[in-house]
Amino acid sequence: MKILIKNTSVLTMGEEVELMGNASITIENGIIKSVGLAPADFEADKIIDGANKLAMPGLVNSHTHIAMSLFRNYADDLPFWPWLTERIMPLEEKLIPEHVYWGSLLSIVEMIKSGVTSFADMYFFMDEVAKAVEETGIRASLSIGMSESGDQDKKIKNAKAYFDNWHGKADGRITVMAGPHAPYSCGPSFLSKVIDMASEKRMGIHIHLSESKKEIEDSYSLRGKSPIKHVNDLGLFELPTLAAHCVHLSDEDIEILAEKKVSVANNPGSNLKLGNGFARVEDMLKKGVNVALGTDGSASNNNLNMFEEINLAALVNKALKGDTTSIPATTAVEMATFNGAKALGIDKEVGTIEVGKKADIIIIDLNKPHFYPRYNLVASLAYSAQASDVETVIVDGKVLMENYELKTVDLEKVIFNAERCAKSLIK
Amino acid sequence: MKILIKNTSVLTMGEEVELMGNASITIENGIIKSVGLAPADFEADKIIDGANKLAMPGLVNSHTHIAMSLFRNYADDLPFWPWLTERIMPLEEKLIPEHVYWGSLLSIVEMIKSGVTSFADMYFFMDEVAKAVEETGIRASLSIGMSESGDQDKKIKNAKAYFDNWHGKADGRITVMAGPHAPYSCGPSFLSKVIDMASEKRMGIHIHLSESKKEIEDSYSLRGKSPIKHVNDLGLFELPTLAAHCVHLSDEDIEILAEKKVSVANNPGSNLKLGNGFARVEDMLKKGVNVALGTDGSASNNNLNMFEEINLAALVNKALKGDTTSIPATTAVEMATFNGAKALGIDKEVGTIEVGKKADIIIIDLNKPHFYPRYNLVASLAYSAQASDVETVIVDGKVLMENYELKTVDLEKVIFNAERCAKSLIK
Repeated sequence: MKILIKNTSVLTMGEEVELMGNASITIENGIIKSVGLAPADFEADKIIDGANKLAMPGLVNSHTHIAMSLFRNYADDLPFWPWLTERIMPLEEKLIPEHVYWGSLLSIVEMIKSGVTSFADMYFFMDEVAKAVEETGIRASLSIGMSESGDQDKKIKNAKAYFDNWHGKADGRITVMAGPHAPYSCGPSFLSKVIDMASEKRMGIHIHLSESKKEIEDSYSLRGKSPIKHVNDLGLFELPTLAAHCVHLSDEDIEILAEKKVSVANNPGSNLKLGNGFARVEDMLKKGVNVALGTDGSASNNNLNMFEEINLAALVNKALKGDTTSIPATTAVEMATFNGAKALGIDKEVGTIEVGKKADIIIIDLNKPHFYPRYNLVASLAYSAQASDVETVIVDGKVLMENYELKTVDLEKVIFNAERCAKSLIK
Repeated sequence: MKILIKNTSVLTMGEEVELMGNASITIENGIIKSVGLAPADFEADKIIDGANKLAMPGLVNSHTHIAMSLFRNYADDLPFWPWLTERIMPLEEKLIPEHVYWGSLLSIVEMIKSGVTSFADMYFFMDEVAKAVEETGIRASLSIGMSESGDQDKKIKNAKAYFDNWHGKADGRITVMAGPHAPYSCGPSFLSKVIDMASEKRMGIHIHLSESKKEIEDSYSLRGKSPIKHVNDLGLFELPTLAAHCVHLSDEDIEILAEKKVSVANNPGSNLKLGNGFARVEDMLKKGVNVALGTDGSASNNNLNMFEEINLAALVNKALKGDTTSIPATTAVEMATFNGAKALGIDKEVGTIEVGKKADIIIIDLNKPHFYPRYNLVASLAYSAQASDVETVIVDGKVLMENYELKTVDLEKVIFNAERCAKSLIK
């Protein structure tokens, strides 16, 4: 399959952020062949007119639990513990694989429509999530979420098997990490088992770290140190790590994250909604930490709209620092694209529009009132754009949405079945 | 004209917030005649099918400068003073009435498309804004922004003439307030002249108050009191007042705002973007202050998307208070509807869906992935909805947008002319 996107604006992102006007992108067998002038002899099978549009790297949702879309708007404006223990957990106990499958599809549909081409997920019944990824054509880093309760050896065995079954599958669109849930749900001995398993398999780690004030206080009471220091002392950061949240950090924590090249998934929408506060995003970036953006699950957001997260990252940090230059537009967009790809360990393949990379590209329809006048397209992405401006989505060189129309999923079927599953959960 | 919206969900808002399923709304000569069951003998000229949709009161943007859409994404991520004095003000000096007209139309198009039915504006060349309001069918409270520099008597005379020319015009859709810009740009003697004029004409006041930390510090240096205390001592709050921003408030300030029944336009997007910080929204509401929501101008936001402001109000205050119950969904939606109508002094006419009120109604298309499953529609408005979900907009009983199609404005003509004006400003 040879695709030509012609006559368009292109935002390349990557080490050199370049905004090109009136450019073309050619794609062959899923790989970007040229950016700028198309080769004269390129015989396209498919031509996409990019006039008054912007092509940019697909967004990376670096932390979510996509099956939790089934709990969207089910429990809001409640204190954290009643929310979790009285509302969310009782529903989670009722989940069966079929629910996770349809909930995952509902979220994947929402993500494709809003320009997400890759996501990092941690949940259970993860075979269902992998199937949904395989069928829809999106890209994902998947982890079975593990706590220490129950049969630990079986959990380790299942995590290994999940890696063996799915890592590199779906034409390489699926990668697998180990998913120890958090240091408060995984004690040191279980965490050490996970670390040993991940080292043996050369897996990355996806973990929740330093999300709430209570977590920090409990960690100091129990161990006299922060969650970050604790897992670092256990050797967890010797593996490539994607640490979700990292809201409450000491200067020493930030030094550790930088030194150990940990990637952080900042989830501003979830952190605000659950009352957890404001992450030290600018401080982390200044120290060289790779900070990506994520939505968290739809029970704590309540959508998977990465344009909202870009906007929040660019706005909230300015107020927090009292400095209008904090997290400028380019940085916010970078967090949602290139930094996200790094966080998922797939930055050699995607995250920028560059020759030789896999074609994970989204096209934004600029013919909307909020994109006029046309002074600065990067600023407009961070401060004016909406998820609904995404009109075409390409992953791995395959068109998943074109001119707002989904190509690989039956939207009505997904909605019907997700509703059916949700109803069976609350009856 | 008799309109029937049938078979829909209705969120009434107002003192009693009611969510009705499978309901009808009838509208006759611009007035809501029934909500719930339609009268059996209602012969509709127009029928709108509301299946899988939600009818709710139109959103009220309680503080903006709509012609500033011409500066959207022109100057971002800059410190406040260079932003204002080196970028925005030099462009404002070049503005001619034609620019304000097309900039206003660009913003009105954006507002209609995103469900705004009323807005409060303060700027200059306000005849042009009034013309744009009259032509498009939207509702507005308009004020000429006044500073003390120049011929003060002429300014007072112009403000009076503007009131005489426009207040109650466009079938009553236009109301006029006096617009002294702020206590730092209007000294006490000029403010007193404005207060006298407004008292004589029975006008409300639209003013910027306590937006930045610097404003508070300067006010204490100069007068030994806060801006709020200062204007209250001058008697300004004896008139119905719409105070924009009110970010930095003492407990005494909040007491004054409550006692004097001042309405506050909270602009979270602008306050964050310009690094001004976090307003004490929950504290104000608890003391009985009427807090509405606004976008501010597109140079400091950079759009007029009230769904983003609803979302920000519901999210940011939770993190600020460390309390997930702060500003629940219903409150955030109330701020953007009923409280906004009160702030504009038009709550007897609009702001809720109730029999006898003018029909300012928007219809949300719920057939989007992010509205499933369907547990709580009010929560979904605050946490999941997007401006692009608005599919039909009715103001004063007249359809301004139906099934996403604008009925009173030529979108392409507006965009073309707004671009032309923007280009002539920066050349």
